[in-house]
Amino acid sequence: MRADVGRFFSRHPSDVSEVAAAIDSGILDPQTIVAIMGKTEGNGGRNDFTRDLATMAFQQLLRPYFVNSDRLSRIIFSFSGGCEGVITPHWIVITVAKTPASKAEGKKSLAIAVGKTRRFRSEEVGHMAMIDETSRVVENLRKEARISRASDVHFVHVKGAIVSPYGDQVRDNMAYSRGASALGVALALHEVAPDTITDDTVLRDWQYFSSVASTSAKPGLAYSEIVVMGNSSEWDGDLSISHTVMQDIIDAASLRDLWRKNSRGKEPQSIRAIFAKADADPRHVIRGRRHTMWTDDDIADMRYARCVVGGVIASVFADTAIYVSTRAEHHGPRGGGPVAIVGQRKDEEGHVNDQ
Amino acid sequence: MRADVGRFFSRHPSDVSEVAAAIDSGILDPQTIVAIMGKTEGNGGRNDFTRDLATMAFQQLLRPYFVNSDRLSRIIFSFSGGCEGVITPHWIVITVAKTPASKAEGKKSLAIAVGKTRRFRSEEVGHMAMIDETSRVVENLRKEARISRASDVHFVHVKGAIVSPYGDQVRDNMAYSRGASALGVALALHEVAPDTITDDTVLRDWQYFSSVASTSAKPGLAYSEIVVMGNSSEWDGDLSISHTVMQDIIDAASLRDLWRKNSRGKEPQSIRAIFAKADADPRHVIRGRRHTMWTDDDIADMRYARCVVGGVIASVFADTAIYVSTRAEHHGPRGGGPVAIVGQRKDEEGHVNDQ
Amino acid sequence: MRADVGRFFSRHPSDVSEVAAAIDSGILDPQTIVAIMGKTEGNGGRNDFTRDLATMAFQQLLRPYFVNSDRLSRIIFSFSGGCEGVITPHWIVITVAKTPASKAEGKKSLAIAVGKTRRFRSEEVGHMAMIDETSRVVENLRKEARISRASDVHFVHVKGAIVSPYGDQVRDNMAYSRGASALGVALALHEVAPDTITDDTVLRDWQYFSSVASTSAKPGLAYSEIVVMGNSSEWDGDLSISHTVMQDIIDAASLRDLWRKNSRGKEPQSIRAIFAKADADPRHVIRGRRHTMWTDDDIADMRYARCVVGGVIASVFADTAIYVSTRAEHHGPRGGGPVAIVGQRKDEEGHVNDQ
Amino acid sequence: MRADVGRFFSRHPSDVSEVAAAIDSGILDPQTIVAIMGKTEGNGGRNDFTRDLATMAFQQLLRPYFVNSDRLSRIIFSFSGGCEGVITPHWIVITVAKTPASKAEGKKSLAIAVGKTRRFRSEEVGHMAMIDETSRVVENLRKEARISRASDVHFVHVKGAIVSPYGDQVRDNMAYSRGASALGVALALHEVAPDTITDDTVLRDWQYFSSVASTSAKPGLAYSEIVVMGNSSEWDGDLSISHTVMQDIIDAASLRDLWRKNSRGKEPQSIRAIFAKADADPRHVIRGRRHTMWTDDDIADMRYARCVVGGVIASVFADTAIYVSTRAEHHGPRGGGPVAIVGQRKDEEGHVNDQ
Repeated sequence: MRADVGRFFSRHPSDVSEVAAAIDSGILDPQTIVAIMGKTEGNGGRNDFTRDLATMAFQQLLRPYFVNSDRLSRIIFSFSGGCEGVITPHWIVITVAKTPASKAEGKKSLAIAVGKTRRFRSEEVGHMAMIDETSRVVENLRKEARISRASDVHFVHVKGAIVSPYGDQVRDNMAYSRGASALGVALALHEVAPDTITDDTVLRDWQYFSSVASTSAKPGLAYSEIVVMGNSSEWDGDLSISHTVMQDIIDAASLRDLWRKNSRGKEPQSIRAIFAKADADPRHVIRGRRHTMWTDDDIADMRYARCVVGGVIASVFADTAIYVSTRAEHHGPRGGGPVAIVGQRKDEEGHVNDQ
Repeated sequence: MRADVGRFFSRHPSDVSEVAAAIDSGILDPQTIVAIMGKTEGNGGRNDFTRDLATMAFQQLLRPYFVNSDRLSRIIFSFSGGCEGVITPHWIVITVAKTPASKAEGKKSLAIAVGKTRRFRSEEVGHMAMIDETSRVVENLRKEARISRASDVHFVHVKGAIVSPYGDQVRDNMAYSRGASALGVALALHEVAPDTITDDTVLRDWQYFSSVASTSAKPGLAYSEIVVMGNSSEWDGDLSISHTVMQDIIDAASLRDLWRKNSRGKEPQSIRAIFAKADADPRHVIRGRRHTMWTDDDIADMRYARCVVGGVIASVFADTAIYVSTRAEHHGPRGGGPVAIVGQRKDEEGHVNDQ
Repeated sequence: MRADVGRFFSRHPSDVSEVAAAIDSGILDPQTIVAIMGKTEGNGGRNDFTRDLATMAFQQLLRPYFVNSDRLSRIIFSFSGGCEGVITPHWIVITVAKTPASKAEGKKSLAIAVGKTRRFRSEEVGHMAMIDETSRVVENLRKEARISRASDVHFVHVKGAIVSPYGDQVRDNMAYSRGASALGVALALHEVAPDTITDDTVLRDWQYFSSVASTSAKPGLAYSEIVVMGNSSEWDGDLSISHTVMQDIIDAASLRDLWRKNSRGKEPQSIRAIFAKADADPRHVIRGRRHTMWTDDDIADMRYARCVVGGVIASVFADTAIYVSTRAEHHGPRGGGPVAIVGQRKDEEGHVNDQ
Repeated sequence: MRADVGRFFSRHPSDVSEVAAAIDSGILDPQTIVAIMGKTEGNGGRNDFTRDLATMAFQQLLRPYFVNSDRLSRIIFSFSGGCEGVITPHWIVITVAKTPASKAEGKKSLAIAVGKTRRFRSEEVGHMAMIDETSRVVENLRKEARISRASDVHFVHVKGAIVSPYGDQVRDNMAYSRGASALGVALALHEVAPDTITDDTVLRDWQYFSSVASTSAKPGLAYSEIVVMGNSSEWDGDLSISHTVMQDIIDAASLRDLWRKNSRGKEPQSIRAIFAKADADPRHVIRGRRHTMWTDDDIADMRYARCVVGGVIASVFADTAIYVSTRAEHHGPRGGGPVAIVGQRKDEEGHVNDQ
């Protein structure tokens, strides 16, 4: 198998012309697409309809290629609104293709699997039921992707269920859905010990978190959609993925470490995708100093967080095409968050050091 | 003479309690204050009244110490609204005190002078008349501060005149006032040759700029207020100033160079003030990729620019107390802007390399 | 002929389910649709993509009913972003159907015609060329709709051309396109005398205006799209249209007069559509008192204007489904704007008094 | 006694020049001031510092007139941020002066008393303790103002306590403080029966409300400040107060009734102050139609509510100087709110009908 991650740019949220051109020219085979992610220039809030617009545009583009609409419906679409600051609106098209068994010895390559949880009931969201089911699916997808070790998983994207957004279930909301999904990822990847997590852990005990999760939540979604990305010696290709955890929103040091490991001093031309999860520290303090991101009633903390972390990441990686998502409950330490890069090897030696 | 730059933090825009405490305890002598700058948590726009609030709070604090209200009125107050992202609201109190002639040989120390231009007529704003007068005053202030070379000046703050904000003069507005003021600084410091600048240069020929100017503009101000900061061997003290120019809003490389020159590998504990001028690139592109800072009708480009550059600078200097001001016409190359740091020597060798 | 105007409600900007249900149940014949207008819950600015989303949703809905895509492309879609305050998001579907010659004597009924101008060149926008061509098309559409007198026209919607949005033509922008289009309507309906209007009138001489125009402008549109609505004795049906002009944004008196003429004391259950054009008075004063709609850098004057006039109209007509569009250059007196209602006769006598 | 209510206008939130001029000219005696209310052009949210600015400006203005700073501290300052739409920034200066016993027979005149509750403990806010204490003080102030009947009270302004804004008490926050304060007013004025109200009523049982309360809440205030306004035959002067309750945010009918009662067909030149409490209906529906005021993440529901109700009231009273405050828990029916007017008699007969 061979995974590919292609980046395309848009002039507005329904502009899928670059992807269309890649299909037309034969570079991109629609049948191999397993997920399309992207950043759209909305506000990222409840009234951000740019995500719907992008989804509609891609479905309109792809429908003619799928006689079987079931197969089209298996593609995961996950668009994150909010291109604050320098973040450039872009699409990340993820494909998986079968390849002849030509795998080079030793090297690990990018491996991907996508799937869904079972449907949740409203009272399960934010509880152990969601954590366990998320964990189960992540574990299965890791195996399906033939990623041998949990530590070879570097990015798990979860679009988490919110069953009854206006219901009376206390936990059936965005924060709990994200938090429980992240803990589910942590559980699957042995980042937390099985017995330490209970219902009470969620949104309360911040010492437990995942370093590779990136979860969002969507009102009206009855199940969670999951993308697992890691490195596997059973996959082909010159792409691989690695990650770090920013300890706070201005932690460039961790980013530079990740960069050095990837680039080994070479030029940063090989990035295929950057995924980040960020938070405006909810304790109102960064490095001992007050920030005002939560007390500004004109601009949401989430817009600020994306703007800051987008700028910081772009300043280190020299790349503004960053998939940044905010509110990072149980994603790295409080106020921090995971960052993953998909990169392309440039030479014989390869740039990924975790083989 | 000895210049000092002290940083104080606020809990809200009228909170001057830390400065009051410093005065009460004898650490800060109100009579030595020549300027108070600061960042306040407003929107930085026309309806940002946090600047007025800070001014009123400081005048109320200082009035009892000044029998002669003329002397109080000579203190330059310059508050910049907008603490987007990680920027922490803070005050920068700048003092100049006479010292016995104990100057150590060779070392250059921070030197400061403040002053005002003559009053402008509305039709002079944005024209050569403003450029020449600004240049003349900057030149005089440099000499008054006994800064021997133009290249020893690292920061020139100008609060530029706008005489008749609602008048019919095409150039009597913020952009022209800032642009002409910056070119005036450039002229005084030989950053541009005297004969190259004409009325037509302003807001048009972007190859001409200052690398140390930081200009804002205030409707209703008939003259410009100017603070010149540099290093001089005739001044005392362990503070000094240095600067760089960000080539674009995510240019961390230039910041790291400046940092290395200052810290020589040591810990970043010595910063006394950070001044930056930034722009959301008006060409809608950064590093070849589209950004949306100018086409978002919910959030102004200026708020985005401060948020990004504040995050990037904080990520390099590990310090969120940054005086960031936006719209940077003729301040460094388009889309970029100057950054200056006032730092304190930590040891015998000192950390400033421009002596 | 018989015109019908139906109102449908949405739960989000791509929700066209009520229209789909009307088609499914046979109430609405897609082939008779000449225009679909609507309010979507965006910000009404440059980054309001809810209009694109609505257009895409309606085209997706209607495409199966139009073998000939040319006919589909003749339907005018005009969505106005911004449902500030009480304005409810809704669709206005306008149809024209042939009817047997059963016209009741004397009564005038709603008559509608839609069309387009020729393509404009960039340098024509905002000039007499645009005014004259707009006037010519409005005149033709009035005749095509067999509206015998200019005074029987009560609403002319123009989606005006902007040929090269980023070009260097001074007038090829929103304000000039709206202003010239409105003057074109005024010229066609004898609201201004032919010889009084010149290039210099546009955006300068505010005594000239239309009392029935409602113009917007769309970057990238090379021609203008026009909907003319009036009353004609040659049309069938129990709908008719009437209008008033608000003299300023809080002029409820004019609205109540219009209401009384329509309702003759009866209950307000017969409204089929409300169209309004409004302005935050650009002179910063309403009824002698300062307002802050133009000096608030957090919220645009246009959002405020829609919010206010939507509330005022809803408070008089007891109806929140109002198509409000802002910036009203040459639409009624400065600070004011036209308001039109399509209503349904309730009884034998009818409620329209302009027969 | 004689109460006076004067309205003054500002050019910005620290502009108290009109009030200063009235004092200078002898029209206004600072010693008679009991309260200063006003609308300032902030966002009305947590980061609205225009209220602090106005307070500081007025204290600076008044301090020289008060040798005894205790007396100055008894003046109630209550500024409400948010001049959305047509609402003009203004000050309402309320005075009470002793007069010779020349009271005309029969006529009731405006009567005012101001006071404070005892200090609350954090766990009392939002509970019966706050309701009862608020009720007790309102009752006392009514008697102090010699307003004989509860039904003669038309406006009770409460700036409610929030003791520990960041504490762990569930109810020590804005909504509970406002709700309990309003129920306290209702209790004092017999709008609710004593035994019907319990802790569980607050923010839960919406059938209980006051028709004359106008409560806000201020973090850090340990006690509540109260202004009671009504009509009394024992007071002098040609001012009086009356009120209505808007049933929803577009209920112009109730406003017109109030207007007719006051003006008896005469011109609306006699208004001295308008006080309104408004809500964006939290059920997301107005007159059966969806509104989007709570789901817009760019603009707060409170800004929308003030904008709408300000426009509607201005359109009926032809006056844009309206003190509008939002979030109206237990103030009139859900989605509605009380409106009070202080007016001046124009002739012998007087315009107030509730004598």
